[in-house]
Amino acid sequence: MEIIEIKGKPTVKVLDKGYVRMVDTMGDDLTVVNAARVSYDKQKEELDERDERLIRFLAREGHTSPFRHASLQFEIYAPLMVARQWWKYVVGSSHQDNMVAWNESSRRYVTEEPTFYILAPDEWRQAPENSKQGSGDPVDTVDGIEISGKLIRFINEGERLYREALEVGICAEQARLFLPAYGMYVRWYWTSSLQGVAHFLNQRLAHDAQKEIQGYAQAVDVLARKDFPRSLEELVK
Amino acid sequence: MEIIEIKGKPTVKVLDKGYVRMVDTMGDDLTVVNAARVSYDKQKEELDERDERLIRFLAREGHTSPFRHASLQFEIYAPLMVARQWWKYVVGSSHQDNMVAWNESSRRYVTEEPTFYILAPDEWRQAPENSKQGSGDPVDTVDGIEISGKLIRFINEGERLYREALEVGICAEQARLFLPAYGMYVRWYWTSSLQGVAHFLNQRLAHDAQKEIQGYAQAVDVLARKDFPRSLEELVK
Amino acid sequence: MEIIEIKGKPTVKVLDKGYVRMVDTMGDDLTVVNAARVSYDKQKEELDERDERLIRFLAREGHTSPFRHASLQFEIYAPLMVARQWWKYVVGSSHQDNMVAWNESSRRYVTEEPTFYILAPDEWRQAPENSKQGSGDPVDTVDGIEISGKLIRFINEGERLYREALEVGICAEQARLFLPAYGMYVRWYWTSSLQGVAHFLNQRLAHDAQKEIQGYAQAVDVLARKDFPRSLEELVK
Amino acid sequence: MEIIEIKGKPTVKVLDKGYVRMVDTMGDDLTVVNAARVSYDKQKEELDERDERLIRFLAREGHTSPFRHASLQFEIYAPLMVARQWWKYVVGSSHQDNMVAWNESSRRYVTEEPTFYILAPDEWRQAPENSKQGSGDPVDTVDGIEISGKLIRFINEGERLYREALEVGICAEQARLFLPAYGMYVRWYWTSSLQGVAHFLNQRLAHDAQKEIQGYAQAVDVLARKDFPRSLEELVK
Repeated sequence: MEIIEIKGKPTVKVLDKGYVRMVDTMGDDLTVVNAARVSYDKQKEELDERDERLIRFLAREGHTSPFRHASLQFEIYAPLMVARQWWKYVVGSSHQDNMVAWNESSRRYVTEEPTFYILAPDEWRQAPENSKQGSGDPVDTVDGIEISGKLIRFINEGERLYREALEVGICAEQARLFLPAYGMYVRWYWTSSLQGVAHFLNQRLAHDAQKEIQGYAQAVDVLARKDFPRSLEELVK
Repeated sequence: MEIIEIKGKPTVKVLDKGYVRMVDTMGDDLTVVNAARVSYDKQKEELDERDERLIRFLAREGHTSPFRHASLQFEIYAPLMVARQWWKYVVGSSHQDNMVAWNESSRRYVTEEPTFYILAPDEWRQAPENSKQGSGDPVDTVDGIEISGKLIRFINEGERLYREALEVGICAEQARLFLPAYGMYVRWYWTSSLQGVAHFLNQRLAHDAQKEIQGYAQAVDVLARKDFPRSLEELVK
Repeated sequence: MEIIEIKGKPTVKVLDKGYVRMVDTMGDDLTVVNAARVSYDKQKEELDERDERLIRFLAREGHTSPFRHASLQFEIYAPLMVARQWWKYVVGSSHQDNMVAWNESSRRYVTEEPTFYILAPDEWRQAPENSKQGSGDPVDTVDGIEISGKLIRFINEGERLYREALEVGICAEQARLFLPAYGMYVRWYWTSSLQGVAHFLNQRLAHDAQKEIQGYAQAVDVLARKDFPRSLEELVK
Repeated sequence: MEIIEIKGKPTVKVLDKGYVRMVDTMGDDLTVVNAARVSYDKQKEELDERDERLIRFLAREGHTSPFRHASLQFEIYAPLMVARQWWKYVVGSSHQDNMVAWNESSRRYVTEEPTFYILAPDEWRQAPENSKQGSGDPVDTVDGIEISGKLIRFINEGERLYREALEVGICAEQARLFLPAYGMYVRWYWTSSLQGVAHFLNQRLAHDAQKEIQGYAQAVDVLARKDFPRSLEELVK
């Protein structure tokens, strides 16, 4: 995955129109080491081999609190179905600290034009053979072309009905019922501790996560490793 | 709002097909009083006037921790746009403790048939005059009839395309892009402390909350007051 | 460990004067099962073998959110050094959800008489041989008798100086500087989800936890298993 | 309060031997503004008057989530009784997000020499006249001199007994029972969101907080305002 710059910050593109942008960070691998050694009143300025062993030990033994003194802030632009899986992970997981803050765009206002995730014909996947959840191989090209066409037409129809509803004076918070929302892009800021980011990666890089969110997790991974190479090497398996 | 019984538990119906069901609770107003008096090693068995004054004092001064020893569990069935506002409240608010647990149904599986919120013709609201958010008076009956008809047809079309996608073998997690998800019903369990419930009520009973979620907040309010009348009297303004 | 009744609730005694008392609970093993099956809109009334397999699966795969819909409230009476390890676990751990609520007695007031943990002569432990932390075998009886005597005299002296300071009019919040606080008993209410209790047990039952807090963890374990036998069987290793 | 530099970071001294050191921060007042405007996909580079009005509006209306995208990390050195009030605030308050991370030195190890808070004769305060909690005017000089002398002697005696216990081979985790722990200095790292810092300041700058912790709150206030002047102006009342 290639890192580009958008609005002056390292960014990785995902899906047809989405991205993950690393807005800000606090700390580095040394932050973890210094927090773990608070009983000794020492403060290292450069990471050495002993520090790397300490990071490995902390990660292996589940002493995760030192990893929570480093913070990362991301801006994410993704289909609502991805945002929803991300939220459910945050609110439903046992690690609430992975979520320090979340601010997301809303369709109760009329602001940006609705934008949708449109799958290319070769991006549709089959139902898996031996599982009720997840997905398998790509579908036939012919089927893919047809289903992409249907999706485009259905979204166009939804957008037309949404605009008509607004035009006859319906409020935005009800008119949005016409938008096929699962594929609609939303934008949000996510701020998390390093430990929270690692926990998210362990869950969402996994092979049974939905492919679409795996792409976002890979983008977060590539960006976060720039500042926390040793910690993420140990925390993300 | 009338309290009925569903599956043996007190329940309030909301919107055309939704409900809030109070599955379980722990504690009552005395729980709050006893927690606040932990320094005195006393335990009351009946609430008296001094206890009521203590509850009033705690609520007024923002000493909210005693209200967090009581727990409530709800099952909720609501359109996804309501679930989403509820989540955003939970993850975006400064009170993470209002969320002890959240488990929600998912469209990555094919389980229940999709069910949608269909507005009656007189339930559509106009855009507000002086605000970018929220809603105002009902729209004209004629417009309401027409827009309800369009919504029904659009949802039918979405369900048809969803089924077609499943039939050609597309996985459920992608096929759901055809469902107009904002109005689709989801079911979830929400467990929260009494303090978290009160904070939710203060936000979602407010006049600027979307009408649809206000209905759910009223249902939670009616149900929760049965067990915590004094505490909610003081906490919810 | 024997379960007795104190103030009408199941209680286990710990150390010379401490105890854990289970004040209230919400839910049972079925609560976990029903939360996990929210997508299926089923509600079981009795636990069967399939449910037990589901609990085992959830625990093994780390799907912990269903375990957070059950709540437990304890009253604990323990030396401050134990309370402090318990707190550090709560605030420093990655699982904040194990703490829904905490209310503790304070020495800023003059309420109960100070009470202290007095080790019997055979309860003193040696420094471990190969570790900077923890403890090893008991010390010699003669040394134990002498050190217990010194502790009693030192605590008596501290209590005398504390009372003198109060008598010349010093405020309680400063006079307490004379109390050997590590061994002073404090009382608190702790409310947690079942998942939080299990996480606490996994940490504090471990052989490298301080013996004194291990005793409290065993008491919590014995009490909590009455209502959640299957879940704790799988969650606590 | 004067800001000096310790180990290269802005620091404020508190009490006889304590301090607050601002180790790191993420973001500034613009972070808040940009998070609040996520629906508009704009990103400001300089704070103008409209942004200041937005910050005022967010603080006044309790829309605190945008204030949680900024992070601050402090190292604190304070008597255990101050650390304990700080913890109780963190675990007992309704705002768990004020605590992203906490790592503290422990007396289960033998590392640094124990260090104690010694009140000067004019720092002892009287019990308040009309309250069970808090403190009033300074005590008489003669009483102050006597009580400071007693405290020094009592701490010396405790340290001597602690060393003797270590010398006969008692483990550190038990030997510490001889240390008058309320006044013993501990060191910890605290990482919090800006919203959490503001909530801490509102509680601990208050006139009914113990004087000793008020001093630490003032130090945090002075340090944090350097980077977040507008936000703290509105959030801290």
